[in-house]
Amino acid sequence: MDQLKPSSANLCPQTPLDFLDRAAIVYGDCPSIIYNSTTTYTWSQTHRRCLQLASSISTLVKKSQVVSVVSPNTPAMYELHFAVPMSGAVLNNINTRLDAHTVSVLLQHSESKLVFVDFLSLNLVLQALSLFPSHIPTPPLVLINDHHQPSSTSSTVDFIADTYDYMVAKGDPGFVWVRPASEWDPMVLNYTSGTTSAPKGAVHCHRALFNVSLVSIIDWSVPKNCVYLWTLPMFHANGWCFPWVMAAVGGTNICLRKFDGPIIYDLIQKHRVTHMCAAPVVLNMLVNHPRTDPLPYPVCILTGGAPPPSSVLLRAESLGFVVSHGYGLTETAGVVVSCAWKPEWNKFPVTEKARLKARQGVRTVGMTDADVVDPDSGMSVKRNGSDVGEIVMRGGCVMLGYLKDPETTSETLKQNGWFYTGDVGVMHPDGYLEIKDRSKDVIISGGENLSSVEVESVLYTNAAVNEAAVVAKPDEFWGETPCAFVSLKPDVRPRPTEKEIIEFCRGKLPNFMVPKTVVFKDELPKTSTGKIQKFMLREIAKNIGSTSTTWSSRL
Amino acid sequence: MDQLKPSSANLCPQTPLDFLDRAAIVYGDCPSIIYNSTTTYTWSQTHRRCLQLASSISTLVKKSQVVSVVSPNTPAMYELHFAVPMSGAVLNNINTRLDAHTVSVLLQHSESKLVFVDFLSLNLVLQALSLFPSHIPTPPLVLINDHHQPSSTSSTVDFIADTYDYMVAKGDPGFVWVRPASEWDPMVLNYTSGTTSAPKGAVHCHRALFNVSLVSIIDWSVPKNCVYLWTLPMFHANGWCFPWVMAAVGGTNICLRKFDGPIIYDLIQKHRVTHMCAAPVVLNMLVNHPRTDPLPYPVCILTGGAPPPSSVLLRAESLGFVVSHGYGLTETAGVVVSCAWKPEWNKFPVTEKARLKARQGVRTVGMTDADVVDPDSGMSVKRNGSDVGEIVMRGGCVMLGYLKDPETTSETLKQNGWFYTGDVGVMHPDGYLEIKDRSKDVIISGGENLSSVEVESVLYTNAAVNEAAVVAKPDEFWGETPCAFVSLKPDVRPRPTEKEIIEFCRGKLPNFMVPKTVVFKDELPKTSTGKIQKFMLREIAKNIGSTSTTWSSRL
Repeated sequence: MDQLKPSSANLCPQTPLDFLDRAAIVYGDCPSIIYNSTTTYTWSQTHRRCLQLASSISTLVKKSQVVSVVSPNTPAMYELHFAVPMSGAVLNNINTRLDAHTVSVLLQHSESKLVFVDFLSLNLVLQALSLFPSHIPTPPLVLINDHHQPSSTSSTVDFIADTYDYMVAKGDPGFVWVRPASEWDPMVLNYTSGTTSAPKGAVHCHRALFNVSLVSIIDWSVPKNCVYLWTLPMFHANGWCFPWVMAAVGGTNICLRKFDGPIIYDLIQKHRVTHMCAAPVVLNMLVNHPRTDPLPYPVCILTGGAPPPSSVLLRAESLGFVVSHGYGLTETAGVVVSCAWKPEWNKFPVTEKARLKARQGVRTVGMTDADVVDPDSGMSVKRNGSDVGEIVMRGGCVMLGYLKDPETTSETLKQNGWFYTGDVGVMHPDGYLEIKDRSKDVIISGGENLSSVEVESVLYTNAAVNEAAVVAKPDEFWGETPCAFVSLKPDVRPRPTEKEIIEFCRGKLPNFMVPKTVVFKDELPKTSTGKIQKFMLREIAKNIGSTSTTWSSRL
Repeated sequence: MDQLKPSSANLCPQTPLDFLDRAAIVYGDCPSIIYNSTTTYTWSQTHRRCLQLASSISTLVKKSQVVSVVSPNTPAMYELHFAVPMSGAVLNNINTRLDAHTVSVLLQHSESKLVFVDFLSLNLVLQALSLFPSHIPTPPLVLINDHHQPSSTSSTVDFIADTYDYMVAKGDPGFVWVRPASEWDPMVLNYTSGTTSAPKGAVHCHRALFNVSLVSIIDWSVPKNCVYLWTLPMFHANGWCFPWVMAAVGGTNICLRKFDGPIIYDLIQKHRVTHMCAAPVVLNMLVNHPRTDPLPYPVCILTGGAPPPSSVLLRAESLGFVVSHGYGLTETAGVVVSCAWKPEWNKFPVTEKARLKARQGVRTVGMTDADVVDPDSGMSVKRNGSDVGEIVMRGGCVMLGYLKDPETTSETLKQNGWFYTGDVGVMHPDGYLEIKDRSKDVIISGGENLSSVEVESVLYTNAAVNEAAVVAKPDEFWGETPCAFVSLKPDVRPRPTEKEIIEFCRGKLPNFMVPKTVVFKDELPKTSTGKIQKFMLREIAKNIGSTSTTWSSRL
């Protein structure tokens, strides 16, 4: 029995790139990509274009070298998710919302050998290249033009090696794409956001991306021939792997550069969109710009990236969206924990349903384990919904490690076989885990750990509140106190006062969790990925200084 | 980039056994198994029972030793699909329809250390044990009683180590199940059918069973909480992996011992069955005993094992069944090629749709490749739907190899990286493959594969027989039945009759392998090199037409 070993017939490296060849056979005549009113490709065409592009890329870079892409969700961005790794190179997406300095740092750190750049990000990238030290060679650029938009390349012709369209056109459609020698070979490099000083580049292999793609289909019950709206940027953890998922199920990708509530509703109606992924901020957009007439059919939304406030979930579902909630990190390639819905929950009142759905949930079938452990002992915390610990996981979707950073890699992928997420959570008695805070966002007040997320979720139930973020404010007596930053909905009259907001929270939260300070802002500062920049708010809070809180206000 | 290697956080062996722990959390209160009118378990209970059983098994056998099971589709049979590998042992199902001699050969070949036997198969297994040579120790038996049926064990108490119920009852529900050290560790051993002379035992590892389970969910679009009717025997390639699939999706398993058309229709109505797998003979059963009132909702059927006749497909769909067609072999653990349906085919007339659906199709997303190759050159045949060749595949669902048979293993899993199926097919211009013939020698009768070579070897033991060749004869009910062509030795007197030849085979072969027709020839047609021309005999057999076989001879 033990003499039977893997052989070349079953040891074939698993890779999501295989989905594309198959899609060309099964879904050859079905639409693969729709963009604006003029561009529609079939899966045959996408297959052919990706092979041509891969063939062209393979003449410029060597195996395992990095090719970067700076682009919004255009057809080119989609094609590069196949073409770059099919050429043997490693795909590195760069967030278009970063500043030139950060882009420069990432291009240097990744030793990128070729950069595909959307025409609207050209200035950003040129600026980033100009920040390269003179002894470091800058990578050549491939310009992605948009036929709907004029672009000017006259002054930058020196940098530009080629145009995207020409790279596709000159490529060989009979190109035999470069299969990984091992399924553990690197396929993508994704930098975690906000990393100007010490870039953390999570590297994923073919196997992990294959796993997370298949498991996402199962977990979200993605049907064949679905219609997927690209509201989630592909430069966020490869749009949680949905470029590859769509090839596996023969879905239609509705690409778009930018969007707001009305645009989303228009595209849903026009293309009969069935599925979309959306960070809570996009959910917010939808519930704040509801259609006047109800959705003609249920539209499935997978939300993640931050714990969605129950009230937003509630409103989205009342509009006809079917919201699923998943949890993952750049380091897990996509959703690896999800709030698997139980049939018996359907009978609960809507508020209870929303509360349950706001929990992150249980590991998907692609993961071996997920747990919440005490940081000191490493033991599982009690399953009581209140003891907090760090969320840890293991399984086939976890990254290989951080590029050029063995130290952080071994701190994160520990010897004991767990990936430490850095997120703080609890385990409920039913085995569902829930994030209580990103670890940096824990506020420690008078020896009590309190979760800024919980305070925020109460603030969001206030009808006047548009956005809320709670951070620690240093306090002479308590160590830290919660400080709320709030933006109000534009039309609300009268505007609530700081005192009213505090009073609103009192009674809904333990005293020590009630914000001691409320700061009103027209808009909260956000990162390029749309996350509220809590570190900036912490700076502001620090400068406000210690306020006079007393024991009596606390206990 | 190349310095990043797999670590213990992502190198966790993938195994379908992990699905059960998760099912106990997500689907804990949902029904897992329903059997007759009295037995209903939840996923919590199934999880607990499997752990208890695994704990008991682990006290009797060592890691990687074989545990055999001879049982129809009872709850015990289902539980053993988890409990045996969770104990660290390798699960070996034995077809209850085999004869004692074959069962004895398989138990000896597998070196089975423990045999779970359903009370109705007890005599068969006792007889098999009595055929063990005296120097080979016989494995202890665990008797699976059925609370609905009386059973007598008084005379066999020496052989019986324990009862199933007691094994469960005395086990430890806190048992820490034995994880595979590697995902390439063996998990199941499935003998290809009819192997009295040279048993071929396909060994599958945890990884392959994990892969084929997940991919079956995607390929057949199996929804969560589906209701699955167990018409396909689990001793056929583990019921194509659906025991594990059901744990992954939290489905309900409707177990049953035996069935006919009316029973199936009753159970569909009673339990609101949504899914079932069925060999073409079961499809046949359904279309020959149609309900008077139409199905209240579409019931999904996955058919495979033999090419389904278009006319049967057609009638089944007209009754309200949604039939999908998959193809796999014992060596691929489950369905690895399927007739992926194209939306544009919906507009075709029903006969054309049935013709398209009768094709085996394209590889699933879990396989790397599938092709039809010329046996001599090894090159792909032309995609013209007429050039025949051998169907070959590669990918993560292919077996590790045959137990104790390195020669056949290397003939089947060739150095060039392909698994050679032995099935003959064509590749259509659209990239869909279609079987034209099972490998020369396999006959598929009532869902059972039988080897013509084995029947021939029995015929050759008859002193009157000069030459014998067995081929498939089309049969309206069984699909195919074995038809023997025999030439007799010249001097033999009296000449045996057809009936005598059939009787001769009867005690020497399982019932389904006994020829139903015998044709005497002075000489069998041969090629110039002396090989019997079976294709000519098949033509003759086809023209004889269907004979009247009945269910009573079979079940």
